[in-house]
This record gives sequence, C-alpha cells and structure tokens, in this order.
Amino acid sequence: MASLYTYLLICNATLLLLLHRCSGLSLDTVRDFLTREEDTIVFSIIERAEYPLNLPSYDVPAYFAGSRHDASFAELFVRESEAVQAKAGRYQNQEEIPFFPFRVPFALSPPYNFTSVKLYPAAAFVNVNDEIWSIYFNQFLSLLAKNGDDGNYAATAASDLVCLQALSKRINYGRYVAEVKFRGDQQNYITSIRNKDKDALMKLLSSESQEDVVKRRVQKKAMVFGQNVTSDGPVETGDSKSSQASFKADPSLVYKLYDQWVIPLTKQVEVEYLLHRLD
Amino acid sequence: MASLYTYLLICNATLLLLLHRCSGLSLDTVRDFLTREEDTIVFSIIERAEYPLNLPSYDVPAYFAGSRHDASFAELFVRESEAVQAKAGRYQNQEEIPFFPFRVPFALSPPYNFTSVKLYPAAAFVNVNDEIWSIYFNQFLSLLAKNGDDGNYAATAASDLVCLQALSKRINYGRYVAEVKFRGDQQNYITSIRNKDKDALMKLLSSESQEDVVKRRVQKKAMVFGQNVTSDGPVETGDSKSSQASFKADPSLVYKLYDQWVIPLTKQVEVEYLLHRLD
Repeated sequence: MASLYTYLLICNATLLLLLHRCSGLSLDTVRDFLTREEDTIVFSIIERAEYPLNLPSYDVPAYFAGSRHDASFAELFVRESEAVQAKAGRYQNQEEIPFFPFRVPFALSPPYNFTSVKLYPAAAFVNVNDEIWSIYFNQFLSLLAKNGDDGNYAATAASDLVCLQALSKRINYGRYVAEVKFRGDQQNYITSIRNKDKDALMKLLSSESQEDVVKRRVQKKAMVFGQNVTSDGPVETGDSKSSQASFKADPSLVYKLYDQWVIPLTKQVEVEYLLHRLD
Repeated sequence: MASLYTYLLICNATLLLLLHRCSGLSLDTVRDFLTREEDTIVFSIIERAEYPLNLPSYDVPAYFAGSRHDASFAELFVRESEAVQAKAGRYQNQEEIPFFPFRVPFALSPPYNFTSVKLYPAAAFVNVNDEIWSIYFNQFLSLLAKNGDDGNYAATAASDLVCLQALSKRINYGRYVAEVKFRGDQQNYITSIRNKDKDALMKLLSSESQEDVVKRRVQKKAMVFGQNVTSDGPVETGDSKSSQASFKADPSLVYKLYDQWVIPLTKQVEVEYLLHRLD
C-alpha cells in the first residue's frame, strides 16, 4: 500500500514536471529570447558588413543558367551548408527552420529527446523563410554592404548564412509568441480565428509602444556593438552626435531592418499561426 | 610611336599597381586587421556562451569508438562544414587555413584572382591549427560554457566552428605580422634566422607594452559587447564595479584567452614562419 502511494506520488510529480515543461513558455521567456536574439542579429550584421558586397556571389552565372545549377553561388552554399546541419540534427529543434528543407537521415548527432513540444502541431509548419530570403538578398544586403569585390565569396556566404539563420529564428519565433498570446487570452483569439479576421488578430497582436522600444533598442545595440573600443574604453559614446560612418554597421539601417521587415514579418507569422491554431 | 609610348605608360602603371598590391602590407594594415578580428572573436565567444556546454558533442561516442567514425560529433561537423567551405573556395585566400585540409575540387565559387600574394612561399604553410583545436576543446570551452545540455548540438558545433575560424585566422595571421616585421628590419632578423636563434627572434618580435594594450582592449570589448543594452542605452557601464556575472561572456576569461593562448600562439607562428623565411 505504501509503495502504491509512493508510486502515485512519483507519477504525480512526473506529470507536474511534464506539464511545467510543456507550458514552460511565458511572455517573459519569449521576450527574453527575442531580446537576446537581437544581439545575435546585430553581431551577424556587423560581421557581414566587414565584407564588401561581393556581387558575383549573388548572380546566377551565365555558365549555370538553365543547368541543374541554376542558382547563385550563395544559394548553393546555403543549400550545402544546411544539408550538413540537417544531417547534424539542427532542425530537430522546432525553433530552427531550414531555407531548403532536406530529407536527410538524422545520422550524426548524439541522441536528444526534445520533449518540450510547445507549438500547436497543426500550426507549427508556418514560416516566412521565402520572404526573409528575398528581402535579405534583394533589399537589405545592398544597403548594408559597401560596393566592392574582395573575392572572399565563401566567407561572405558563410556570413550571410549566419545572418539568415538569426533572422529566420527570430522572425519564425512569432509562432511561439502567438502561442503564448493565444493561451493568455483564448476567448478573444478564438472568436477572431473562427471569423478568419486577420485585421482583428493583427490588432490583438500589436503593441505600437512595445515595438517602438524594440526598434530603438536594436538601433542602440548597433551603436554599442559597432563602435570602436580601445583599451581605455569605447571611442564612440554612441550618442546622437556621433557620425553614422564611425559604426561598423549603420544603426539607422538596423532600425529600418526591424521597422520594415523583422517586426512586420514576425506579426505575419503570428497571424498565420493563429489562423491554424484551431485546425 | 605615340601609341608605343601610351603602351609603355600603361605597362608602367600596371606594374606600379601590382607592386602596390603585393607590398600592400604594412604594420598599420596588419594592426588594423588584428584589432578588427578581436571584435569577431569576442562576438563569436559571446554567441558560443549562449549555449550550455553540451558535452555529448565532444565525446567520442561508444558506438563510434574504433570505427571509421572515431571522432566526436563536433569534429565530424567541422570536417563536413569545412569540406563545403573548401569546395566553395574559402581556402583560396591564404589568410584562411582549414583544420582538416581537403583536396576538394574548387568547383562552386565564382572565379577570383587573389593576386596579392604577400607571404614568402616557403614559409606560408606554417600554422598552429592543431594547437588551437586542442586548446579550444580541452581547455577553453569548459571555462566559457556553463554546464548543461540543451540538445542543440548542431547549432553549438556551428558556433564552435565560427570561434575556431576566427581564432585560426587571427593566430595564423602571425605569418603576415612576421613578414611585415622582417621586411622592416631585415638585417637583425636575417642574423637570428641564420643562427636558428628562436630566443632572439622571440625577443625581436615581442613588445610587452603593446601586448598589454591588446589584452586590456579585448577584455574591454567583452564588457562592451557582452553587456545588456536597453533602448535608453547600456544597462552596465562596463566599469570595474560591475559584476562579472552580468556579462554574457566573462571578460577576464577573454583576457586569459589572449594572455595564455592567442598572443603566445601568434608569436609561435611568427617565429616558425621566420625560421623558414630564408628557405
């Protein structure tokens, strides 16, 4: 009898632990992730800005056009690198989504049980990687990188991949943001989801003041992380009088990146996720 | 006659341009590179510190031991990633040296003519990648990463690779440092090289005051780049009263990294390069 009681106690404790794991997502943990990911994004952008544009990486060369290699060098590089990372199990973690989904046997990596499935399964597929890809290469890159060609195409593409992965993780994390917001206000969300009312969902999700804080913060991070530091301390104080040219990546461009692309795309992910939240 | 004169003028201009490219290495450009590479190293270390140690990545698993896969997951990951980067032409630039040299056809990348060969060919092979590998995995990593296992082995190994590449590029840049110093003081260096006098070379190369500036600067960079930044500015001022724990990577560990490993290994590369400088 005593051992049955112990057994039930253990079952209960295990259940509580599992519940805690599954619901281990709060607005605070989501915000902490998004804030920390800003540093990763800003670092990756500063690193990419070290190289010139290196245009030959992004053109589909004449000798490839129409062949099975009908892709730019950068695209081929990302595909092959993602294949290695897929084989290494990177995409076993639902937070990471490849740009070129592979069906590679999960061969190399040590086993790990990602138990804390937090997303609603029927909505977890939502992502905007195609949009991120297009914006990064067709709009953002030419604003970030100075003109020029130093031939370091592989290092440049590796740097692009790090930027793309950071942006993708951040933006597609909108699925987690939406899940948390949904759980916190189910009644309102369910009504709008049932009505397929995108505008109402967007309104529920948006907070202009919060978004403004984020945009000003990433701009400040670009100033702090992109300044020249000497052994006596930072050369630039990061105040508004400092010339933009003294930062390794233009802080106003980082502001624009969040204002025009990162925040709107994250909200797009949130809305699309919610539209499938009751499937 | 006029056209011959024009032709000679063009030849002369081209020759001057080539000479300028080949000798485009000065103590200033070398120092600028090393200073900028510090930012890359500190960023990469802060990023790696975001993950826990993830020990299963570094053990040779029992089911691999003795097989042709007798390597840790991290090593397999680096090997496969370097193979992609080799195929993409990364190591066409002499500044980059793979940890696992591959003989992969240079297939993917757009053609680029790295004309500015600056190293002395018979000494260019010098590198300490094996030492960097060993120190990184056997000494540095356990000091940097907090204990724990979150299963993100591929993302962690990708982060390790970025750290390793940054450290390798910086430390093996000692070849360029040595080349510049040699050119600036040939008489003294030639005597010591002929005598194979490592101690004299080390003395010629060393500047305690300059090394001290570098160490204090990277520690300061770890403070500035690893602090928490809000939209109103940095939370931490980076002064000595701030708790070490508030930085994303311990600044004193970054100091130690340079003091015990980066600077001594760079000087080792310089000495070994010089010993082959007259071959």
